[in-house]
Amino acid sequence: MKKIEHIGIAVKDLDVSNELFEKLFGAPAYKFEEVQSEGVITSFFHNGPNKIELLAATNPESPIAKFIEKKGEGIHHIAFAVEDIVSEIKRLKNEGFIVLNEEPKIGADNKLVAFLHPKSTNGVLIELCQEIK
Amino acid sequence: MKKIEHIGIAVKDLDVSNELFEKLFGAPAYKFEEVQSEGVITSFFHNGPNKIELLAATNPESPIAKFIEKKGEGIHHIAFAVEDIVSEIKRLKNEGFIVLNEEPKIGADNKLVAFLHPKSTNGVLIELCQEIK
Repeated sequence: MKKIEHIGIAVKDLDVSNELFEKLFGAPAYKFEEVQSEGVITSFFHNGPNKIELLAATNPESPIAKFIEKKGEGIHHIAFAVEDIVSEIKRLKNEGFIVLNEEPKIGADNKLVAFLHPKSTNGVLIELCQEIK
Repeated sequence: MKKIEHIGIAVKDLDVSNELFEKLFGAPAYKFEEVQSEGVITSFFHNGPNKIELLAATNPESPIAKFIEKKGEGIHHIAFAVEDIVSEIKRLKNEGFIVLNEEPKIGADNKLVAFLHPKSTNGVLIELCQEIK
């Protein structure tokens, strides 16, 4: 794992939160993207070598809608950049981590992604992501 | 804000979690530190330009003990590295953020730190930290 690629934050209203994080970082979101398969709209902020991703639900069945219903707004996941997602999934599975999707899927921001179940990672939802070249 | 300095993760048992994160990163914690004023013991892992800090309570009054009681183990805070914490506190206060300690205090890992109230930051406890030179 090379670095924290981004931190995903679940928000209720993307416009309101974009304004808040623009004040926090002193710079606006540089990118907006909808991931239809996950029922989310996202915005991205640069923070040096890292990014912050805000996620808002586009329908009540979205994992983000369910997360907010249960826990309120806040940090949803940490994403780590990996060189080779397939070998990293294999390594982590062998180490006893529960991989939610053993077949990497296409996520936001031109990435192949896989998630580790929070039960196996101290309550932290961890995303692995590899840049699609 | 220059980068994500670290992510703080609240854990029940530091030894158990050190083992878990060593497997995750493929390398052990490089540093252990007690912060008596906060009632915590901590361990640090490198992850490229970022760090992961595990925090376990040393007494039942510790903020980490209370956090785990309320929310369970998981991500506790995000810390952003800043160049000048005093001017950053002033800037963020002017932008409407609630600063929990307007006077920076000494935190783990040789840092001056200040926290923003999650009420003003989308449910995210944010730490500002400046290296002590």
